[in-house]
Amino acid sequence: MNSKVYLGIDLGGTKVLSAVINAKGQILSRGKKRTAKVEDRDQLVGQIIASAQKALHEAGTAPGDVAGVGIGAPGPVDTERGVVLEMPNIPVGCLHLRSELETALGAPCAVDNDVNVGTLGEFWRGAGQGTSSMVGVFVGTGTGGGIIIDGKLLRGKTGITGEIGHIVLDPDGPECGCGRRGCLEALASRTAMRRRVERAWDEGQGTALKELTGGVPGKLRSGAFRKALDMGDKLATQVVRDCAINLGYGAVTLIHLLSPERIVFGGGVMEALADEMLPIIEGIVAERCLDGCAEGIEIVPAKLGDDAGVLGAAALAIEIASE
Amino acid sequence: MNSKVYLGIDLGGTKVLSAVINAKGQILSRGKKRTAKVEDRDQLVGQIIASAQKALHEAGTAPGDVAGVGIGAPGPVDTERGVVLEMPNIPVGCLHLRSELETALGAPCAVDNDVNVGTLGEFWRGAGQGTSSMVGVFVGTGTGGGIIIDGKLLRGKTGITGEIGHIVLDPDGPECGCGRRGCLEALASRTAMRRRVERAWDEGQGTALKELTGGVPGKLRSGAFRKALDMGDKLATQVVRDCAINLGYGAVTLIHLLSPERIVFGGGVMEALADEMLPIIEGIVAERCLDGCAEGIEIVPAKLGDDAGVLGAAALAIEIASE
Repeated sequence: MNSKVYLGIDLGGTKVLSAVINAKGQILSRGKKRTAKVEDRDQLVGQIIASAQKALHEAGTAPGDVAGVGIGAPGPVDTERGVVLEMPNIPVGCLHLRSELETALGAPCAVDNDVNVGTLGEFWRGAGQGTSSMVGVFVGTGTGGGIIIDGKLLRGKTGITGEIGHIVLDPDGPECGCGRRGCLEALASRTAMRRRVERAWDEGQGTALKELTGGVPGKLRSGAFRKALDMGDKLATQVVRDCAINLGYGAVTLIHLLSPERIVFGGGVMEALADEMLPIIEGIVAERCLDGCAEGIEIVPAKLGDDAGVLGAAALAIEIASE
Repeated sequence: MNSKVYLGIDLGGTKVLSAVINAKGQILSRGKKRTAKVEDRDQLVGQIIASAQKALHEAGTAPGDVAGVGIGAPGPVDTERGVVLEMPNIPVGCLHLRSELETALGAPCAVDNDVNVGTLGEFWRGAGQGTSSMVGVFVGTGTGGGIIIDGKLLRGKTGITGEIGHIVLDPDGPECGCGRRGCLEALASRTAMRRRVERAWDEGQGTALKELTGGVPGKLRSGAFRKALDMGDKLATQVVRDCAINLGYGAVTLIHLLSPERIVFGGGVMEALADEMLPIIEGIVAERCLDGCAEGIEIVPAKLGDDAGVLGAAALAIEIASE
């Protein structure tokens, strides 16, 4: 019997989730702390460790019994050194997460980008199971992804890979959060959808989205789009459709380049709207891929929701513990 | 001493090149036959075998001394079965090249797409040497490519990968040879460049390209663009620049997804125009890539010219002979 346990940690802009997970990928316990109001690096690290200790306590695990720690962070990561270079939504600067966590938890620690980690989670225990190559595409505030080839996360030369949101889709298109133009994310993400709605509001276009959110752009979450769609709202239908079409173009590019066995679509937008969006994405793939290119390639929704992060982080931990 | 030799064959729409190559990648002899006027499958196979026999004769090698045969074909290939599904420029239908060549030459044979094979050639003996991951982009009549990850050609689920020419770059853009819209190839290939010039001719725009080619679109080869460029021709300068910009967008997408160590640009257009185009491509990459994403990634011209095909095919042969 393998009794080793691992700590999987999912660091986000509002909360940090920790879980004690065994080698089979079963979640034994969880811990959660807020990160929204941390003021500096020390407070943030304190919250991460507190969430881990809560999970360890719940599972009755002593810190010394943890074989490895993995953590996904919302920003670019130097995986070699275990350093998060920056986190747009947690502005505490560059963070040596590996050394901090190894010191506090006494086990080897691996750090990676949250979307890579989510992809690894879906690959190990979710919608990617049974494949040896898959791409994870996560559509939320932004759009990101990860690439698995031959059963391994592709890391590339710089460690920054699977940046699906920054595929150039329309060189003269709308401005992206990254400051450049026409990235896929500027055309297909919650931010892109919100912008379209705000513009329509400015133009005085009638839409149920206005009543549902009181006209507050910050309340244009995926759930509001879902409700408006169910009410047959014209603007919401258009905006969701166009987002899906652009994600479809992204999928076509992924298939032409990589020919993965499966593309898994996750993230908040997909959790609320996959049933509307996936058929549109599949339609674009059928229409735009070269003959034979899309044959047998599956396009499926993610399965794990929020658990993808802690499970993928545990997969990282298992990898580093076995080195 | 390793005295094994391999046959590398590069099948094209106008000619077929064969070479006897040793395990170090030295070309010992060559054979060449025309394929432009073959009328059916048997004639084509006859020309391929004749070119191989010429190379074998020149090197003084008996067919029985060949350890393996590799061939690159200009069309989609089922690499598992060694079958070329179709060749737009050699319309003889589906072709069981592996079984034909194994019977005729008495050695195991591997078949792959010509651009994958060219990428493998550059990786083994050309501009990709010393890397473990690279992308080859070949710009000619069309634009294609191949992807090497962890020292191996990426084959994917369907065997069709690295179709860089069919990245969706502008969904509402010009029609592509594949019948779809806005593929990179429709904006960046010799065909795309020709179309731009023809349109300018139709509009009566003055250009040295007209004098250089007698106004015959078929004569708008890369060399004509080179000459017109050297003469300071405005249209040629614009067309070459725009082609390079679009290739730059393609490179940005490749880097954001794959983070390869090196991108190697080859093919007829690049052989004539790399000195103009590569700096423009590098400029787009610097401007459009996320911070840190392009760091240390090299963009270089191919080194092997026509030899990439036979050398890559020999690399395939070595692979299959060692199985």
